[in-house]
Amino acid sequence: MPKIKLLVSYDGTDFCGWQKQKDHAFAPELPSVQETIEKGLEKIFRHPIDLCASGRTDAGVHAIGQVCHFETDRPLPKDLCWALKPQLPDSIAPKAAWIAPDEFHATLSAVKKTYRYWIWNHPRSSALLTRYSWWIRNPLDLDFMNQASQYLIKHQDFESFRSVGTPVKHTFREIYGAQWAYKKPNLIEFRVTGNGFMKQMVRNIVGTIVDLNQKNQQVTRMQEILDAKDRRKAGPTAPPQGLFLSKVYYPKDLDNKCRQI
Amino acid sequence: MPKIKLLVSYDGTDFCGWQKQKDHAFAPELPSVQETIEKGLEKIFRHPIDLCASGRTDAGVHAIGQVCHFETDRPLPKDLCWALKPQLPDSIAPKAAWIAPDEFHATLSAVKKTYRYWIWNHPRSSALLTRYSWWIRNPLDLDFMNQASQYLIKHQDFESFRSVGTPVKHTFREIYGAQWAYKKPNLIEFRVTGNGFMKQMVRNIVGTIVDLNQKNQQVTRMQEILDAKDRRKAGPTAPPQGLFLSKVYYPKDLDNKCRQI
Repeated sequence: MPKIKLLVSYDGTDFCGWQKQKDHAFAPELPSVQETIEKGLEKIFRHPIDLCASGRTDAGVHAIGQVCHFETDRPLPKDLCWALKPQLPDSIAPKAAWIAPDEFHATLSAVKKTYRYWIWNHPRSSALLTRYSWWIRNPLDLDFMNQASQYLIKHQDFESFRSVGTPVKHTFREIYGAQWAYKKPNLIEFRVTGNGFMKQMVRNIVGTIVDLNQKNQQVTRMQEILDAKDRRKAGPTAPPQGLFLSKVYYPKDLDNKCRQI
Repeated sequence: MPKIKLLVSYDGTDFCGWQKQKDHAFAPELPSVQETIEKGLEKIFRHPIDLCASGRTDAGVHAIGQVCHFETDRPLPKDLCWALKPQLPDSIAPKAAWIAPDEFHATLSAVKKTYRYWIWNHPRSSALLTRYSWWIRNPLDLDFMNQASQYLIKHQDFESFRSVGTPVKHTFREIYGAQWAYKKPNLIEFRVTGNGFMKQMVRNIVGTIVDLNQKNQQVTRMQEILDAKDRRKAGPTAPPQGLFLSKVYYPKDLDNKCRQI
């Protein structure tokens, strides 16, 4: 059955996360991004849609470039994104669609991901960045945070940044780049790229680096935390609203086999 | 009675505008920014507060730097913005406060205002800019729009940009600067500064310039519209969510007499 690859952006504020909550115990009143897009696609294709993403995003986390796929044997509209748009709330924007080769799988084929995290670093809160940043009053030291981030860059065990209760096959991941920079005055952006991230791993990293900075710790504490392989040695989890899934990378040859529609 | 000058920012999405709606016929379920801040101040000062702004903003319009004032004879908290912050929703941020001289009046003393208007100009909608921009699919021509804007720059009659049903003493205003530029790829920002703006005047200007561009009109149409002194000759009103009250200017000598608290 033909496979469709879809690139979407969303504002995670009003969703319980990407995936439908099974028990709806957490945020029972909020829909998931997944079911919202599935319902939109079902109105177009008139059969149940099973949407599979590159990875889940948590409640409140945004996506600039989430990738997902589904299968359908029905005729495709001339412009799928344009057809889908009116079926979705404004908080979800379809950005591009492709017919993908059979071997493409949004989760399993992904080789690299980039996340961004925004911190509004100012004594006063920002009304216009509330939904999209973590507000931190006291000045952060970007030099310190960039030095601390360099300890992340290699293939290693990120057990200390695995949230409790997150089952994973193993806790080894490779981080290729991790950098803090001013996006504009008082708005700090963290960009991190790696071959994979566990649930809340980016938020645990951000929370830890900010915590070390605010407690005037030595930057070498970062290595000790990694070596400890113990979540309790790391800092708190940064809040979700600052996090954006920015880009998902697939192998070049798979990209080349995708035909934009 | 001591006069307090307050600088605030707000996300206008969830408000019926700055001012309390008398009949609540429009957006009856939404609070006004004014009453929300007044209630917050009343919790601190424990007497009724009458808050006066530099000007009203319409439903859905945002403010980066709205200025308002109120009077109180009660003791001031050490940091008024900090004390006020927890009394307000996250969509309103107090940015600074001053003790102002008696002759200061947020509305009457204002000599100049700058507005910004954001247009997301891309075939695909943007999930993260939905609340803060007008989405226009077809490419706009910034050269054309900048040329059209130059007709605005002088002291003249803006009758053609006065919304029907807006009572004003006169329709003469002076615009000092009006410019379109790319804020980032596909995000166009219009900045306009003048000595005063009538209700919806900026949105009428933006809607008209976009309309002329999209209908491939001659740029000289702008002068004809101004000369007509007839709202029906101008274009539609641009939607509110792209508009930001950016800055309100007061005379230097008044600013110098304000003491930040």
